[in-house]
Amino acid sequence: MRKLRRLPLRLVKPKDDEEDFFHRPGDMPGTIIIDADAPAPIIFLIDYNKTDVVHKQLNTPEECAPYLDKESVTWVDVQGLGSADILERLAKVFDLHPLVLEDVVNVPERPKIEDYDDQLVIISRMVVPKERVCGFYSEQVSLVLGKYYLLTVQEEPEHDCLEGVRSRIDKGKGIIRSSGADYLAYTLLDAIIDGFFPVLELYGDHIEELEEEVIVNPTPKTLQKIYKIKRELLQLRRAIWPQRDAINSLIREGNDLISDEVRIYLRDCYDHAVQVMDMVETYRELASGLMDVYLSAVSNRMNEVMKFLTVMSSIFIPLTFVAGIYGMNFDTEKSPWNMPELQWYWGYPLCLAVMGTIAGGLIFVFWQRGWFENFSKINQK
Amino acid sequence: MRKLRRLPLRLVKPKDDEEDFFHRPGDMPGTIIIDADAPAPIIFLIDYNKTDVVHKQLNTPEECAPYLDKESVTWVDVQGLGSADILERLAKVFDLHPLVLEDVVNVPERPKIEDYDDQLVIISRMVVPKERVCGFYSEQVSLVLGKYYLLTVQEEPEHDCLEGVRSRIDKGKGIIRSSGADYLAYTLLDAIIDGFFPVLELYGDHIEELEEEVIVNPTPKTLQKIYKIKRELLQLRRAIWPQRDAINSLIREGNDLISDEVRIYLRDCYDHAVQVMDMVETYRELASGLMDVYLSAVSNRMNEVMKFLTVMSSIFIPLTFVAGIYGMNFDTEKSPWNMPELQWYWGYPLCLAVMGTIAGGLIFVFWQRGWFENFSKINQK
Amino acid sequence: MRKLRRLPLRLVKPKDDEEDFFHRPGDMPGTIIIDADAPAPIIFLIDYNKTDVVHKQLNTPEECAPYLDKESVTWVDVQGLGSADILERLAKVFDLHPLVLEDVVNVPERPKIEDYDDQLVIISRMVVPKERVCGFYSEQVSLVLGKYYLLTVQEEPEHDCLEGVRSRIDKGKGIIRSSGADYLAYTLLDAIIDGFFPVLELYGDHIEELEEEVIVNPTPKTLQKIYKIKRELLQLRRAIWPQRDAINSLIREGNDLISDEVRIYLRDCYDHAVQVMDMVETYRELASGLMDVYLSAVSNRMNEVMKFLTVMSSIFIPLTFVAGIYGMNFDTEKSPWNMPELQWYWGYPLCLAVMGTIAGGLIFVFWQRGWFENFSKINQK
Amino acid sequence: MRKLRRLPLRLVKPKDDEEDFFHRPGDMPGTIIIDADAPAPIIFLIDYNKTDVVHKQLNTPEECAPYLDKESVTWVDVQGLGSADILERLAKVFDLHPLVLEDVVNVPERPKIEDYDDQLVIISRMVVPKERVCGFYSEQVSLVLGKYYLLTVQEEPEHDCLEGVRSRIDKGKGIIRSSGADYLAYTLLDAIIDGFFPVLELYGDHIEELEEEVIVNPTPKTLQKIYKIKRELLQLRRAIWPQRDAINSLIREGNDLISDEVRIYLRDCYDHAVQVMDMVETYRELASGLMDVYLSAVSNRMNEVMKFLTVMSSIFIPLTFVAGIYGMNFDTEKSPWNMPELQWYWGYPLCLAVMGTIAGGLIFVFWQRGWFENFSKINQK
Amino acid sequence: MRKLRRLPLRLVKPKDDEEDFFHRPGDMPGTIIIDADAPAPIIFLIDYNKTDVVHKQLNTPEECAPYLDKESVTWVDVQGLGSADILERLAKVFDLHPLVLEDVVNVPERPKIEDYDDQLVIISRMVVPKERVCGFYSEQVSLVLGKYYLLTVQEEPEHDCLEGVRSRIDKGKGIIRSSGADYLAYTLLDAIIDGFFPVLELYGDHIEELEEEVIVNPTPKTLQKIYKIKRELLQLRRAIWPQRDAINSLIREGNDLISDEVRIYLRDCYDHAVQVMDMVETYRELASGLMDVYLSAVSNRMNEVMKFLTVMSSIFIPLTFVAGIYGMNFDTEKSPWNMPELQWYWGYPLCLAVMGTIAGGLIFVFWQRGWFENFSKINQK
Repeated sequence: MRKLRRLPLRLVKPKDDEEDFFHRPGDMPGTIIIDADAPAPIIFLIDYNKTDVVHKQLNTPEECAPYLDKESVTWVDVQGLGSADILERLAKVFDLHPLVLEDVVNVPERPKIEDYDDQLVIISRMVVPKERVCGFYSEQVSLVLGKYYLLTVQEEPEHDCLEGVRSRIDKGKGIIRSSGADYLAYTLLDAIIDGFFPVLELYGDHIEELEEEVIVNPTPKTLQKIYKIKRELLQLRRAIWPQRDAINSLIREGNDLISDEVRIYLRDCYDHAVQVMDMVETYRELASGLMDVYLSAVSNRMNEVMKFLTVMSSIFIPLTFVAGIYGMNFDTEKSPWNMPELQWYWGYPLCLAVMGTIAGGLIFVFWQRGWFENFSKINQK
Repeated sequence: MRKLRRLPLRLVKPKDDEEDFFHRPGDMPGTIIIDADAPAPIIFLIDYNKTDVVHKQLNTPEECAPYLDKESVTWVDVQGLGSADILERLAKVFDLHPLVLEDVVNVPERPKIEDYDDQLVIISRMVVPKERVCGFYSEQVSLVLGKYYLLTVQEEPEHDCLEGVRSRIDKGKGIIRSSGADYLAYTLLDAIIDGFFPVLELYGDHIEELEEEVIVNPTPKTLQKIYKIKRELLQLRRAIWPQRDAINSLIREGNDLISDEVRIYLRDCYDHAVQVMDMVETYRELASGLMDVYLSAVSNRMNEVMKFLTVMSSIFIPLTFVAGIYGMNFDTEKSPWNMPELQWYWGYPLCLAVMGTIAGGLIFVFWQRGWFENFSKINQK
Repeated sequence: MRKLRRLPLRLVKPKDDEEDFFHRPGDMPGTIIIDADAPAPIIFLIDYNKTDVVHKQLNTPEECAPYLDKESVTWVDVQGLGSADILERLAKVFDLHPLVLEDVVNVPERPKIEDYDDQLVIISRMVVPKERVCGFYSEQVSLVLGKYYLLTVQEEPEHDCLEGVRSRIDKGKGIIRSSGADYLAYTLLDAIIDGFFPVLELYGDHIEELEEEVIVNPTPKTLQKIYKIKRELLQLRRAIWPQRDAINSLIREGNDLISDEVRIYLRDCYDHAVQVMDMVETYRELASGLMDVYLSAVSNRMNEVMKFLTVMSSIFIPLTFVAGIYGMNFDTEKSPWNMPELQWYWGYPLCLAVMGTIAGGLIFVFWQRGWFENFSKINQK
Repeated sequence: MRKLRRLPLRLVKPKDDEEDFFHRPGDMPGTIIIDADAPAPIIFLIDYNKTDVVHKQLNTPEECAPYLDKESVTWVDVQGLGSADILERLAKVFDLHPLVLEDVVNVPERPKIEDYDDQLVIISRMVVPKERVCGFYSEQVSLVLGKYYLLTVQEEPEHDCLEGVRSRIDKGKGIIRSSGADYLAYTLLDAIIDGFFPVLELYGDHIEELEEEVIVNPTPKTLQKIYKIKRELLQLRRAIWPQRDAINSLIREGNDLISDEVRIYLRDCYDHAVQVMDMVETYRELASGLMDVYLSAVSNRMNEVMKFLTVMSSIFIPLTFVAGIYGMNFDTEKSPWNMPELQWYWGYPLCLAVMGTIAGGLIFVFWQRGWFENFSKINQK
Repeated sequence: MRKLRRLPLRLVKPKDDEEDFFHRPGDMPGTIIIDADAPAPIIFLIDYNKTDVVHKQLNTPEECAPYLDKESVTWVDVQGLGSADILERLAKVFDLHPLVLEDVVNVPERPKIEDYDDQLVIISRMVVPKERVCGFYSEQVSLVLGKYYLLTVQEEPEHDCLEGVRSRIDKGKGIIRSSGADYLAYTLLDAIIDGFFPVLELYGDHIEELEEEVIVNPTPKTLQKIYKIKRELLQLRRAIWPQRDAINSLIREGNDLISDEVRIYLRDCYDHAVQVMDMVETYRELASGLMDVYLSAVSNRMNEVMKFLTVMSSIFIPLTFVAGIYGMNFDTEKSPWNMPELQWYWGYPLCLAVMGTIAGGLIFVFWQRGWFENFSKINQK
């Protein structure tokens, strides 16, 4: 049951069951809470322009300060939320509003876009499909976009779907090297949204398997699987819905940090978010439909079981009664009316014939009503 | 199960199960993915004005270049997405934005309208009814409208519902020959939307058949059929809903490429899209209602089975008990109280009479409660 | 099943099952399709002003031309859609846009309002209650309002709820004779909307009957009736919803052909449309509730049947077992331990007493649990 | 069933089943329909200013004419709709638009606000809780607000929740005596909205009772009660929803007859309407939940019944079989293999021991699976 | 049942069952109703600026008058609604509109924001988790914000989640001491909204427990628990929904009393409200899903019970029949055809062999159909 348990909590609280990780009511705004299990932050820096790319792993947040005001695009990627000290120093270097730091650190936050004077903060949620089982890892990615830099903060260093972007920067594919930090932000957002498709693919396949299972061999396990799918799709919906809204408001309301060129690309990104949402909703409806089919299939099975019992009982109960009759001990000598059949020459064969006729008649009636039809097809394991 | 399996995937990924056909997260925007199974593109060109019509099948995309700037209307119809090279050359000839090419090639894309400076891109979805079975082929049709040309790209060369438009151009029926490319675009959109009606017709008929089946003879097959209908209507809804929105935004926001005259026609097209959506929703509600009726019918059947068992058991169990009594071996000689009935002159006939009375009484009770009523009507196959 | 079959199709396609009556994809806009079964059009003309009323049945559409430009109000009422020729000549006389003719003739069209330069086209749907059974006839009524004339086109000559309007014109009741064509259009619309009330009345009564039936004597027939109601209410909703929207847009957006005076009256008409919709929705919820009640009632019945079986079996099975014991043939002479009860003086009476005690105890247990309570009340036919 | 029948009809048609009370399609707008059963109108007049209050019961509508233009506030309260003559004379005195008279008289009308030039017409619906049973009386109250007067028309003289307002006028409590007719209108509206709370209170209590009943002792009666609640809440929703909208539009759009001061009070009234709606919706969801719980409880009960039957049958059927074996009449003398057990010294005791072991084993298995657990708790009446 | 009963009423009426605590229809606006059980109000005053903090418990409302116009921030916190006199004097000191006093005192009021000229009134609802059980205390907190003061009125002195704010004021943490009354109001609102998270945490954990229970061991208790969760989530939704709307309207419409700085913080508070709502909705859907799973699990169980009965009956009924045959008393001496088997040398062993074959065959059939599979897994307690 472990896997089932963890899932709905991922959007609610981090891993440790003992402590409270949500903001305690009455806490100062900007209070950050560090989960003892959280991995220590690792800081990567990529600084590039049309001609050069610098890759670095930084030891202290302060090391990235000199890059921030340069015209080259600086991408600072922090992975892990396990140190209040480092995160606060980072906030200082980037001059983050206390509320921004809170949003970035106190995961899970609802995906959203916040517009500060010279920074645009995008809280988003990234999903990465699990291998071999149908499920996904989910983590928060916060983007802080400045004029010449982009700061991204991920919950943990594993399960990342941004590798493609890094390689495009390295290889200088497309226009990424000649574009600004806003294009980089778009690229990452696009990668995050597109990261939902492989996850949905898994669910699509899983639903198909269940469609067969629910009709061919519905077991209580099937029920659990359907419920699990419904629950995880609910999570996906909660992750994608606000991201769509956020991207939409970014396109509509605009922002000085986002160029018109990039806005066109964001429209494409928005379309994909809508498509993800569409698929999530469709899968949810299919899962609900499966639940109905499951219930009906269970009813059908019970029907078949009942029919079997009824056929067996209905045939043998009258026969047993007839046998019971001739097992009675009425004294045949006291009266010619006391069970004279027992003395007949053809008594026993006649009795068997009567039983055979009763059984045959009942079987005919059942057959005529089609009760035997589904026995072979349905109840087979 | 093949047919069932394919359907929900058609809007998700192309035919091959082994490869991923969705945009990989982190891919460059504009990256196009060619499915190995996709048919090679065939390019048709129709160029017409009031007086002349030219029909041509082109070998290379470049051949259509000379037609594009002429004032005559040029319709380039590409069928099949199986060659990256040809599609990229096509994009060059038509000067398509990389995102447009991606939308056109990386099917399935959600239907939408994108407004580029001098091109209007309409992604739409065409459905064609299957023959003999209740189902449909679904493919993406992308329209790129320029001042004097219209480029359409279809997923595959089969299952096309645009033949009527081609014949109207040939025969010069109506005002199509004297109108511009925008009217042609409208005509195609209208044909695509109207193409939903014959498909819905199929489902309407199928639902009617099921309405009878579900009451007269509900089997597990019926359940599968209802689920299949619900699922395919879900697909139709996903196809028509965004098309309606797209057409509506086209009417409302306007565009230089669309004349006022054509906008009036688009209103009509919009009305039809709404009508399609209405019908889809109605059919979905009917299908949901059918599921309820199915469940009730199964319950009713079980009820009848139970009644039958109860009637049979309730009648014979007391009789068997009576027979059991007189089958006991108490020694009648040891005491006048030990089963004196066995020695009576009328013992056996009396015993049978008692049994008959019990059976008759029970049958009367059952008959009075109306338990026999539905036997003949319902359980009949 | 005929009646059931016809209903959902009325909004989908006309009567003939063999031909397709929907617009074929690719057809020219304005193409009209004539159903072979459609009754031939009959043309009535009423021309009136404050002082005079002229009634006429016309033979050709052209006969109404002289009336159209006169300041008196001219109401041309066409009933039946069975002749392409007449309808096209009519369109010529009234100078209809091809799309209008298509909307008017190719029924069923979704109710809507179209604003052409000097004509206002209202497509609406009229329902007329059936006599004696719960159901309704539904037909499309199209209104084309010009400055001095109103053209109405009905699908068929029967089942009309406009008689009251005609008589008001004749008798000069109210302000109709001194008002313009816009007031006449309002009057007809109002009559059409008010025509929904008697139909809903039928359904209200029918639902009440079913409420009793579903609890007192639920049969599979009941289920069919509930489903039929749900389905027909769905049709009514599809008919009234767009009419409400259409009237609303007419009030809000205004039109030169509609005077402010009449707009106040339209608000009243709009309120009635909303009231109809309210009632339809309420009835739909009641019908859904009935379905739940039905399912529960069937479950309850099965429960009672099961209880009966359980009571019968549980009482007699132990008794039969006891009788079986003393029917065994152990040789009482071989051992004093072999069924000595058979030799007892009070053996048989004691055995019967034991049986009576067992039966009494079980009956007491069942009675205490209240299992006998509902037998008399529920299962009664 | 009487009570059940009446309720849904109250919003549809008045008491008499034989006649049609809805507006006949084609009737002249403004046609009023008098129900033969409707009580004759009684006319009360209260005229007050800061210093004086006049109470009067009027015989003719014309008697109130002199008060209408005086600066003192005049409240004319008409109770009963049983006379076309009086109502039409009233309309003349107050100079009502024919549509207003229709709305006021042809109950039930949907609650709404109509803005005429110098009159504001508010159609609202008043509910009054029934005594001792859970239910309510519902009647239409129409308010016509003029500069110095307020006309209210109630369906019937009984069941009024406006007594508190009258007493406030008499006693001069609060600011009512020094305020205008608009404040009086607000006060009445507020009383009408607040009148929903005691009704909802009844339903809240009733739902609580049912929550216990549905778990402790679900019977078919319970089902009927739940359905009845759902149905009556549907009515309440239909009554309160449009009133909220009407009050909201009054606040937003404003009107010369309503002072800014009173508008603040209306906001409070609006909040209460929203609160009523909230409660109605909550109760509806609770009632739907109850239906689910009921269904589950019935299933649970059937489960217990089945378990009982299964336990009884499973224990005794094998025992009876064993007894049957030794009731066979194989001739023990013909062969030492023919039922030698019958001749054993310990044959019978051994046989009983075997039976006891079988029974004990089965009981152990059932006990281990927890089948005995719920017997005592659940099935108790 | 006590706990269950109390919950839905908390938002409807206070503790006493005998009296009516809602506003009686017709009551004067501003009428306040004091619950006899309500605790007497205790008044706390905190007055602070950058340098000083004054804590005081006041005896009379008038004591706080001197603080109100000073530039230091004055927070007057009233806990308990048990005295009309004190509350009215308080209203006088703070110059409250009668409607404000009514809203504050006549709990429960729907959360909302009212904008008076120089006061901003915020009605909100605070929830505090219960200890050890899954549940919450809910009370109304009203905030009246003036230029230099904030008045808060709580329903009762216990269960407060504002302690964190008080300690921040005392310790001078963050910017609270250097900010105005608007920041204090925001801080309290934020604490109230954040107070929903620990409550939701409880429900999240409880749902997880139920997910296991519903599959492993569904009992009628489980059903009650699911219903209780659904009902309490409904309450939470009713509490958070209007608060979100209120905060949103505060951000959008603005108010002179709220500085731009604080408005940024309110956006954060709004985001948390949305997150709470999201979680409530997700939990509600999970709870609904659980209900479905429960129903299916009960059906599955019944299925297993039925299978057990069927297996037992089907195996032994034919055997008992065979035993019955050879228990018949046909006279073997009258005819060689009368049960000659009884005289055979191997008669009895053969008979037993036949029975064994029948039983074995049936067991094989059941095993093949997988009927034995789920016995061990499912029915275990």
